[in-house]
Amino acid sequence: MKRILVDMDGVLADVYSRFFELHEKETGVRLTVEEVAGKLEAEAFPHQIKWVTTPGFFRSVPVMGGSVEGLRKLNEKYHVIVISLATEFPSSLTDKQMWLHEHFPFISWRQIVFCGDKSLIKADIIIDDHPKNLDVFQGGTIIFTQPHNMLLETRHRRVSTWKEIEEILL
Amino acid sequence: MKRILVDMDGVLADVYSRFFELHEKETGVRLTVEEVAGKLEAEAFPHQIKWVTTPGFFRSVPVMGGSVEGLRKLNEKYHVIVISLATEFPSSLTDKQMWLHEHFPFISWRQIVFCGDKSLIKADIIIDDHPKNLDVFQGGTIIFTQPHNMLLETRHRRVSTWKEIEEILL
Repeated sequence: MKRILVDMDGVLADVYSRFFELHEKETGVRLTVEEVAGKLEAEAFPHQIKWVTTPGFFRSVPVMGGSVEGLRKLNEKYHVIVISLATEFPSSLTDKQMWLHEHFPFISWRQIVFCGDKSLIKADIIIDDHPKNLDVFQGGTIIFTQPHNMLLETRHRRVSTWKEIEEILL
Repeated sequence: MKRILVDMDGVLADVYSRFFELHEKETGVRLTVEEVAGKLEAEAFPHQIKWVTTPGFFRSVPVMGGSVEGLRKLNEKYHVIVISLATEFPSSLTDKQMWLHEHFPFISWRQIVFCGDKSLIKADIIIDDHPKNLDVFQGGTIIFTQPHNMLLETRHRRVSTWKEIEEILL
């Protein structure tokens, strides 16, 4: 059974929806995808670091459309590992796992990795929104479109929806 | 640079000291190492699961004697990754990382892995107290003596102190 790494933020967790919402709440300005395209999250949203280091933030993020059904199907055919660079923000760790248990209860604790370097993990395929994680991966790579990466030309196979992931992998 | 996985509980964190202390506090009985030798933690201490699932427990554990100096030295010669099967107890995650930052500040967030299966990680050497983690590892293995494993005959190289780890690896 092939092993597949599935990133949380920007693949399973729709962090941008929450960023747009919080930015509007704090500044009164509703940004558009076009305005933040090509910018890293912290550049597009000046308060992003404050938000992601606030306990509770990662419990409040909506799930990416189609991801629950898509991951359930992948989980039947692949050895799925959900992975997140969460050790960068220690207060996020417990929140992230509680969020996973709530929305993806079919993922067991044995299938979760929180780390600071995804290249440590043995796997065949990775789905991620950050080129830095894909570029160093020795195996199949899929980039999930998010505003920060949408203007990039990349050698990684690009998808914009979970339906496309299903079409490629199932 | 060779990569070495260093387990937390029973190698960096002296969880037994805390277990003996809490058992005495709750029952009035001070157990001895001989009485718990060869038993898994949950068997030796009937309240162990309650303790390890209580937020704050993993902040209160003392460091293993010699481990701060020993890990500091390993960290100069090896690519050290501190690893813990912490996703089994989600409430422990943030506590464990805060504890590491406090006692081992030279270990960066990029060198930490919290997961549910240590065999996912690419590395050359592992130091662990649980044979289940050592038996499946493809590389050099060192078993750190703790009461639960002290009666076992094992193919893994056995050490009982951080001084011995330094002698073998430095």
